Amino acid sequence: MSTCEEAGTRAYHHGDLRCALLAAAGELLSEGGAAAVSLREVARRAGVSHNAPYRHFSDRDALLAALAAEGFAELSRRMALLPASRLQALGQCYVAFALEQPGRFALMFGGVAEKSRYPQLQQAAQALYRQLGASVQAAAPGRDPATASLAAWSLVHGLAQLLLDDQLPGQDAAAAAQAVTGLFVAGLGGA
Amino acid sequence: MSTCEEAGTRAYHHGDLRCALLAAAGELLSEGGAAAVSLREVARRAGVSHNAPYRHFSDRDALLAALAAEGFAELSRRMALLPASRLQALGQCYVAFALEQPGRFALMFGGVAEKSRYPQLQQAAQALYRQLGASVQAAAPGRDPATASLAAWSLVHGLAQLLLDDQLPGQDAAAAAQAVTGLFVAGLGGA
Repeated sequence: MSTCEEAGTRAYHHGDLRCALLAAAGELLSEGGAAAVSLREVARRAGVSHNAPYRHFSDRDALLAALAAEGFAELSRRMALLPASRLQALGQCYVAFALEQPGRFALMFGGVAEKSRYPQLQQAAQALYRQLGASVQAAAPGRDPATASLAAWSLVHGLAQLLLDDQLPGQDAAAAAQAVTGLFVAGLGGA
Repeated sequence: MSTCEEAGTRAYHHGDLRCALLAAAGELLSEGGAAAVSLREVARRAGVSHNAPYRHFSDRDALLAALAAEGFAELSRRMALLPASRLQALGQCYVAFALEQPGRFALMFGGVAEKSRYPQLQQAAQALYRQLGASVQAAAPGRDPATASLAAWSLVHGLAQLLLDDQLPGQDAAAAAQAVTGLFVAGLGGA
């Protein structure tokens, strides 16, 4: 994840401590969801002392916020690889990300209390929303940008959530994402 | 809730036991979410013995399934009061229900494991989906019904979830639901 690669912290014999902590926390997150992430267990898995995580994270919430920020950065990175004009592709990317990393997805969209306490998280989230907004405007220049963006986000967020919660048994996720986003984008352009 | 009103069970000095149990469980659900619902606590609140709930619910999951079924029946009932042709109104109704009863909403869409074990729940859910499907077809006769229904459901489900998870700070829920569903319905008809 990009935050990790970009972090230049070098401390301890362990190399990049922050990076190691986030990697360990990311593993716990994907194994057991946010409930499985504790500073103590992260330290244990990273092979550092119980107190070491506090060098980078004031508490568990700060660690969760960093994990969520990593998620936003990763999803933005993936979307940036797609043509900005391809709103449908961005939507499919969002749904695929949610299914691939359900724990991270849950953390990004609802798992961090008092998001406003974490500027890095807010910036990462806003960067993603700007990306989505630009793509929506390109796809539907005549629409109210705020409404069209919120509708696009709601659409893919809802589909991802329904798939994650086993509400669409027998439904192929990728095919559903393609069909639903295709219908939506056609509708944006059509009226 | 309709299931409760329709139930004719009369047993114990307590009157309609099943109804009393569901009412107590519904209170616990709305106070603390599904985590707050236990057969023991439901019995205590309904003023019956610890064993009494087992007359109607084989275990906690069965009770949760009944609460979810009640939710589907209630949402169907509300939607049935709206003109079937008003897909937008149905969507707004869905979002309003989610915000009014978040615990029930979470239970209906993801909170019951192995839904297929509960025919009453499945029937109640399918009745709702048929209602939605009919309304979508009326609004967009030229569209693939399965895709259009899934898109409509995803849209309102996602918006409700984002609102419930505080992802849209400062956003008026009713206004957002009106704008987003309006854009979607216009798009359905427009292309």
